Amino acid sequence: MTAALDLLQRTIDARIPIARQLQARVASHRDGSLALAAPLAPNVNHRGTAFAGSLNALATLAGWGALWLLLHEAGLEGRIVLQDSAVRYLRPVTRDFTARTIPFEPAAVERLIVALRRRGRARLAVGVEIADNGRPAVTFHGRYVVLAAGTADGDAGHE
Amino acid sequence: MTAALDLLQRTIDARIPIARQLQARVASHRDGSLALAAPLAPNVNHRGTAFAGSLNALATLAGWGALWLLLHEAGLEGRIVLQDSAVRYLRPVTRDFTARTIPFEPAAVERLIVALRRRGRARLAVGVEIADNGRPAVTFHGRYVVLAAGTADGDAGHE
Repeated sequence: MTAALDLLQRTIDARIPIARQLQARVASHRDGSLALAAPLAPNVNHRGTAFAGSLNALATLAGWGALWLLLHEAGLEGRIVLQDSAVRYLRPVTRDFTARTIPFEPAAVERLIVALRRRGRARLAVGVEIADNGRPAVTFHGRYVVLAAGTADGDAGHE
Repeated sequence: MTAALDLLQRTIDARIPIARQLQARVASHRDGSLALAAPLAPNVNHRGTAFAGSLNALATLAGWGALWLLLHEAGLEGRIVLQDSAVRYLRPVTRDFTARTIPFEPAAVERLIVALRRRGRARLAVGVEIADNGRPAVTFHGRYVVLAAGTADGDAGHE
């Protein structure tokens, strides 16, 4: 675990209490993909598979975490706000699960950093996938707004 | 609280442990709208507002609960499976919150019941809204599949 991943884990644990209940764990950050893992037991539903709300929450955290790492690595500070998400539940998740972010395109990262420095505000979409037994089980597509530290966020969004 | 709402609360509490961590509470079912409430404190994020994952989870449960009540009232048994959802986070939620389902169209309910009886399977979209201080803060649109008891569900979806 790098220092950045350790700080991400501590930030999530300290500031988002429900993430502790999900038992969300920063697992790895390799080839531009952030992986967050969670056990099935605390996230189970009445059918013995993973509760859709838990799957979405872990994907939401993974998307947020990937942007948090991007800002951290660029030496920037900012708030990361989820604007909207589209989630498809393709099949039940029957065991412990991991949400993996789709790596950002380098050009999109460059545009984000330029926009943040110029306008204090930028937007980036993040894709996240959860597989079950090697097959895609959940796809998450979230659009996040990043607000440079000190920028008023008006009314927009969450996180 | 009617017997049906009490049974819904007990079903959620007994079978979906993360709902207890959200402190999701069946609040009312009036004019066809089911309301589930949750306090801010256990669902807070690093900005002191409600975590998007918690807001989505409460909306997901409300949509599921509205269909559960519909089946219960029709004397049917079945599984309710979320296929996909689209969520917009319009503004931060700054206090305890309530997810309210949009009432079903009577014609859509009739079609659902006919399809369930004929084919053992039906689909219904559910809209859910969360307001903050009287203004819309979250809109959730979920498509659920209902499978009559005894129907094989193949690989589809969750919940």
